Amino acid sequence: MAEIVRRVKGTRDFYPDQMAIRRWMFDIIRRVSTRFGYQEYDGPCLEFIDLYAAKSGEELVKEQSFVFTSRGGEDLTLRPELTPTLARMVAQKQYDLPLPLRWWSIGPMWRYEKPQRGRTREFFQWNIDLVGAGSVAADAEIVAVAATFLKEAGLSPDQVRIYVNNRRLMDAAFARLEISKDLGKQVFRVVDKLDKLSEPAWRKYALESGLTETQVDALLELLNDNDLWQESEELVEFFKLLAAFGIQDYVQYNPRVIRGLDYYTGTVFEAFELGGQGRAIFGGGRYDNLVADVGGNALSGVGFAMGDVVIELVLTDAGVIPANLGEKPQVLVTVFDEATLPESLKAAVRLREAGLRTVVYPEADKMGKQFKFADKLDIPVAVILGPDEVKAGQAAVKNLKTREQVVAARADLVSEVEKFLPSAL
Amino acid sequence: MAEIVRRVKGTRDFYPDQMAIRRWMFDIIRRVSTRFGYQEYDGPCLEFIDLYAAKSGEELVKEQSFVFTSRGGEDLTLRPELTPTLARMVAQKQYDLPLPLRWWSIGPMWRYEKPQRGRTREFFQWNIDLVGAGSVAADAEIVAVAATFLKEAGLSPDQVRIYVNNRRLMDAAFARLEISKDLGKQVFRVVDKLDKLSEPAWRKYALESGLTETQVDALLELLNDNDLWQESEELVEFFKLLAAFGIQDYVQYNPRVIRGLDYYTGTVFEAFELGGQGRAIFGGGRYDNLVADVGGNALSGVGFAMGDVVIELVLTDAGVIPANLGEKPQVLVTVFDEATLPESLKAAVRLREAGLRTVVYPEADKMGKQFKFADKLDIPVAVILGPDEVKAGQAAVKNLKTREQVVAARADLVSEVEKFLPSAL
Repeated sequence: MAEIVRRVKGTRDFYPDQMAIRRWMFDIIRRVSTRFGYQEYDGPCLEFIDLYAAKSGEELVKEQSFVFTSRGGEDLTLRPELTPTLARMVAQKQYDLPLPLRWWSIGPMWRYEKPQRGRTREFFQWNIDLVGAGSVAADAEIVAVAATFLKEAGLSPDQVRIYVNNRRLMDAAFARLEISKDLGKQVFRVVDKLDKLSEPAWRKYALESGLTETQVDALLELLNDNDLWQESEELVEFFKLLAAFGIQDYVQYNPRVIRGLDYYTGTVFEAFELGGQGRAIFGGGRYDNLVADVGGNALSGVGFAMGDVVIELVLTDAGVIPANLGEKPQVLVTVFDEATLPESLKAAVRLREAGLRTVVYPEADKMGKQFKFADKLDIPVAVILGPDEVKAGQAAVKNLKTREQVVAARADLVSEVEKFLPSAL
Repeated sequence: MAEIVRRVKGTRDFYPDQMAIRRWMFDIIRRVSTRFGYQEYDGPCLEFIDLYAAKSGEELVKEQSFVFTSRGGEDLTLRPELTPTLARMVAQKQYDLPLPLRWWSIGPMWRYEKPQRGRTREFFQWNIDLVGAGSVAADAEIVAVAATFLKEAGLSPDQVRIYVNNRRLMDAAFARLEISKDLGKQVFRVVDKLDKLSEPAWRKYALESGLTETQVDALLELLNDNDLWQESEELVEFFKLLAAFGIQDYVQYNPRVIRGLDYYTGTVFEAFELGGQGRAIFGGGRYDNLVADVGGNALSGVGFAMGDVVIELVLTDAGVIPANLGEKPQVLVTVFDEATLPESLKAAVRLREAGLRTVVYPEADKMGKQFKFADKLDIPVAVILGPDEVKAGQAAVKNLKTREQVVAARADLVSEVEKFLPSAL
């Protein structure tokens, strides 16, 4: 026997049970996105490498993307993120699209990173953006979308938190510490290291980065000041509006949220698991340069992206993924013999027309074997059409959990089957 | 202004209107697949080139696939079809999966072909297979799934037809013409050319392929014999069972359906547009070698694959794609001024909780401008919360089509909005 060809490292097979979880998550994403009035879009999986030159970090395109030359000599990338595609699509039709745009998407992305728990090379990512609205209300709305997703997925404010910060607030604070603009990006890196190093090691790193002792002390104080937001009119307004959305318990100011501050231009936020592994779940913020970077006019937007791998781990660890997910078959119509097979098929047609997910056993066989098949697939109800039932215009309906069986007139078949279905299905 | 980076040739942007059509088609696919008791699965988009060595045609992998070497030196392919992935996944868990399997999937595939109307390099494909059941009933079920999809999509038997043939029947007929097995594959090609060449040209091609004059005459007669199926016990049974599914008008015997006959081992079928361009919409059949080819045990299966590009053209030409598709926003909550903004946000929360797709205008602005925005997005209802309404615990609800406006108590907001919604939404 030949050896089975392997799956590529960092990719996943979705057998029906895994697919059911993915579908459940995607359905929540779709429901939340559309309830907030966002419209679904998608772009190609293949883009020219050039598209990523303007926006994406050097590392992402040069080291972490799948890039290749096509048979026709085009230098292509398997999209590592969707934002440049969004920018291209908006720039192409900038004068035809009614602003502000509320758009969302979910699809596969690829990054050539070392696969590990919580990170695959092929993954799905939810992107949602409000483009062409610069108000604080727009920022609050996007964070409310994010928090509503967490809530609808079954996570409580004790389990997850969205930390918010603001680029302008931090710029002002750094200016007060007399940290020069030139040092700006480097300081973001220093802040980012705070939770990863011991205090002495961090202090050493900060000094080596060009900060003075006084600046390091002041910076440390700043990063522990959870009331700093009150100095920002924007954030005061932001938190006032958040309360109106009824999800304020999921959101909190945190001066240490700094990731992406060199890219984002106003509000930034990042969601974390509380306790457990403390995983980062998603991040986003306000950007001003998106569309202009790919050749369009300047448009301000706010949005975020969430990968499917980490959130599934968080939801699994939190125990909130329902059992018995998936649109599994609800009824098995058995096949008594060759002669009655057409009657079984017709009964199945009737059940399907009533919206019931119905399987017909693919050939005549022993009833016991057919029931066993139903058990393996967790099908709760079987329909039996033997020669006697066919002659009498009836069908037997069997509850496979309780083994209770009733005989129904053919006209009552659907309602009798429905009586035996768990209401959750 | 920089030039906008182009889209890669043969790929598509899905703006919300196009995405709505794709989503509509995918929803029909999902509904039909699950009603027949099939479970959704998916595999990676990236596979090792080796996986395609066994099954796929040489041309598909060597000339028409996107292949490249990853940073880690792996020889990879962007999947040009799903069947080898299905075979791999089944082979990996052959002893754990309850047979027969009813599995379906929809996802992106890539083929490096010349893009033209009806053909893109990046496309979506529906795959559905019944694996591990060798009965004629299984063949009939898969064809019934295909026909039910066409029916649910709004196509009538006057607009599309699924043509069926059988490999064993054709083998027997060719044997009667004393066409040697060695010539077999070449004869399939000769048959395939019949509808593409003039009769004299075809005759010349057939003779050059190694057939005698007598064989060519007999072959032509054979290919015009629409009653040939009556010689096949399998096909007689097949058409009897099809009738039980109630979709027999969509299905017809056709001795010229020959595509893939060198791969399929029993029933084969292919759906065509009647009239118009006569486009081929999808094809499938029974195979016996699928899982064994990738290193598993022999398992018989039957299935088909349908790309999204051709079917969308067929549905468009048939005029059956509904207008106003997509989960568009249903309500705009306007913003009177900064002071009333939180009240607008709260009203939106209530509407969303009732399941209504609700947009809030992102900032205070002139009412006329906000209504115009609603018109552009085809939003039928607006809610207005001015200072008077806020004070009185009321909200104005405006039908943007008729310009009718009512004042509702806050508790009646949802029901008043629903009164103005077109029932189709």
